[in-house]
Amino acid sequence: MPVNLSVFEDFNTIKGIKIGTANAGIKQTTRPDIVVFELAEGATTAGIFTENAFCAAPVQICKQHLKTHQPRYLVINTGNANAGTGKGGYDDAIQICQTIADEKGVALEQILPFSTGVIGERLPMAKILPSLPKALSHTQDNVWFEASRGIMTTDTQPKGISTQFDIDGETITISGISKGAGMIKPNMATMLGFIATDAPVEKNILQKLCSELGNKSFNRISIDGDTSTNDSCMLMATGSANIDVIDSESSAQFAKLKAELEKVFLYLAHAIVRDGEGATKFVAINVENCENTQEALRIAYTVAHSPLVKTALFASDANWGRILAAVGRSGVRDMDVDKINIYLDDVCIVENGARATSYTEEAGSQVMAQAELTIRIDMGRGNSNETVWTTDLSHDYVSINADYRS
Amino acid sequence: MPVNLSVFEDFNTIKGIKIGTANAGIKQTTRPDIVVFELAEGATTAGIFTENAFCAAPVQICKQHLKTHQPRYLVINTGNANAGTGKGGYDDAIQICQTIADEKGVALEQILPFSTGVIGERLPMAKILPSLPKALSHTQDNVWFEASRGIMTTDTQPKGISTQFDIDGETITISGISKGAGMIKPNMATMLGFIATDAPVEKNILQKLCSELGNKSFNRISIDGDTSTNDSCMLMATGSANIDVIDSESSAQFAKLKAELEKVFLYLAHAIVRDGEGATKFVAINVENCENTQEALRIAYTVAHSPLVKTALFASDANWGRILAAVGRSGVRDMDVDKINIYLDDVCIVENGARATSYTEEAGSQVMAQAELTIRIDMGRGNSNETVWTTDLSHDYVSINADYRS
Repeated sequence: MPVNLSVFEDFNTIKGIKIGTANAGIKQTTRPDIVVFELAEGATTAGIFTENAFCAAPVQICKQHLKTHQPRYLVINTGNANAGTGKGGYDDAIQICQTIADEKGVALEQILPFSTGVIGERLPMAKILPSLPKALSHTQDNVWFEASRGIMTTDTQPKGISTQFDIDGETITISGISKGAGMIKPNMATMLGFIATDAPVEKNILQKLCSELGNKSFNRISIDGDTSTNDSCMLMATGSANIDVIDSESSAQFAKLKAELEKVFLYLAHAIVRDGEGATKFVAINVENCENTQEALRIAYTVAHSPLVKTALFASDANWGRILAAVGRSGVRDMDVDKINIYLDDVCIVENGARATSYTEEAGSQVMAQAELTIRIDMGRGNSNETVWTTDLSHDYVSINADYRS
Repeated sequence: MPVNLSVFEDFNTIKGIKIGTANAGIKQTTRPDIVVFELAEGATTAGIFTENAFCAAPVQICKQHLKTHQPRYLVINTGNANAGTGKGGYDDAIQICQTIADEKGVALEQILPFSTGVIGERLPMAKILPSLPKALSHTQDNVWFEASRGIMTTDTQPKGISTQFDIDGETITISGISKGAGMIKPNMATMLGFIATDAPVEKNILQKLCSELGNKSFNRISIDGDTSTNDSCMLMATGSANIDVIDSESSAQFAKLKAELEKVFLYLAHAIVRDGEGATKFVAINVENCENTQEALRIAYTVAHSPLVKTALFASDANWGRILAAVGRSGVRDMDVDKINIYLDDVCIVENGARATSYTEEAGSQVMAQAELTIRIDMGRGNSNETVWTTDLSHDYVSINADYRS
């Protein structure tokens, strides 16, 4: 059961985007496993991608295609990541793009491919290729919910959100979906996000929004950065809304759009954590007053990745010594432990580097028993603050990942 | 059940060392929880310690005392790590040392204190102090086995080894014990090692031996370096054997002693992994042909710490894509994936960055089903090789660590 996450079905249509799905039977047959986004001419698209050296064939192709062309089609398959598949896997992904390009009479480079699932196996092309025309022939305005189901792998429920607001008296819509993966390092399986708006946004500005917002959301969920073989987050702007093109960061329109997009990015990233494999807790780790961002993230990730902290969270055990030990081994230079304070929500557990005198086991346990909590670490050595989100480490996590391929 | 680890009881006496134990009832009452090593005058002692910024009070004191004095007594308690306990915890550890110093008429600085167990709670001094005279009054030549039991915490069995060999026609003895902890990052709970020889070794040479051998053994077992709050490894040389003092690294006597000590260090470090919490596998990760040591270790630890690799090991699932993804996200600059080969024992799974053409699932599964295996990663970019040892991630690991304080 995900932590405080309801299924969202009531998506608003984004004019200028149609979606088609198909079930190719790549790995399962209960949900669609092929999703195609069809973008109207003039739409702009931005993306951020994994930094894993073994980035999958589709990621390589996305990056190349985005450099020179405006995408018209995004095609996603689940069940197979097409990663670690060498030249053959690259050719498979190109063939998928070419099939759509031929079918629709657009350039090969206007197709962006995405794959998620098991690493190291070739795509079942005999199943995928015939499914592409099926998906393309059924594209409709509002099948976002079906798309949110179609990109799932080990997710226990689909993830999506939709919102509307005004810019210059015009209703602007944002709809988005995401899929997640492993709990501890979601980056190691695939994280995917597809977010669209009908606002008109100049391409470079859209890329800045995608990079900045993605960095503070999808890249802050219990990971060492953006590092699976397939992680991708795409931001599309169709421009069908009747407002001036947003082409500068200094406008009020930009600020408004950014604020609304930020909520959507955070919601979708948090949804991945809430539905993390085996998750029973949703935990924010705030690291405050560091010398710089890198240092704050280093501490936050060390705590977020610590199996001992994570199992204590699962047990609702206020074993704050494990948090303290994780901070201490994070490798930050010249750490002055006497300046460090640590809190569970508002309960101070460590004060000046040692157990807080006001601390009681009862107060700590009460916070640890909550389904959602914040571990706040005040380093007292600068002005940089960062937050990452993570979950606990449960028996179910082990079961899910020990059985993933069976 | 530990992986291929038998209980060792048949220790050889190290002349010049007596050991006493007591049960103070700090946390459990079935084993001794106080162990005292008594060193004859003239013995030399060396040590390596945790680099955790929150290093525990006893570690701070050990470092100070070792700087200026030759130790005569080492005192270890289990059940409580005396870490994160501030000034009060420091004073407690000093009081323990002072009690022994007074009892035995030696300097305070000739006592080295060690603690292991839960972090953040003050030592139960009312239990510990009266037990010290008891342990001191019963010191004997050969209670190494009892000592190996007395330093256990979550270990399922005691760990020790003893060996004899000749130098210049004289029998030289080495005996050693260790205790371990968490599986994934043994450094996060306490790792302790106490190794002694009757060979006479000059103090600086002994420190070099301890640092070098400890670095390639205790510091290579699934950790980011030596980073718990309490980790300590001590090497003692009583000098009671009738050979010339080993005071140079260039002698044959030094080489012989080092080779024998190396086996003992490795045995005791591996024993910790074999008895890792919930361990069902003993896995060596060899990273070869890197540009430098740091890079090789970075890759090795990324693989060793990957929960997805570890759960695949638990499941005996040859999900080599998870290994490949871990290598790819290790953050090594300018990684040329086309040069990377990965092997499970002798089975090549990744060749030039993609699934090896010769690879069969059957061959991979056969290796993964073994209780011991080697993951060998050839990066093809230099001449540095490093090995770390680790285990899988099992249900029992979660159980043990979710219940540790109950």
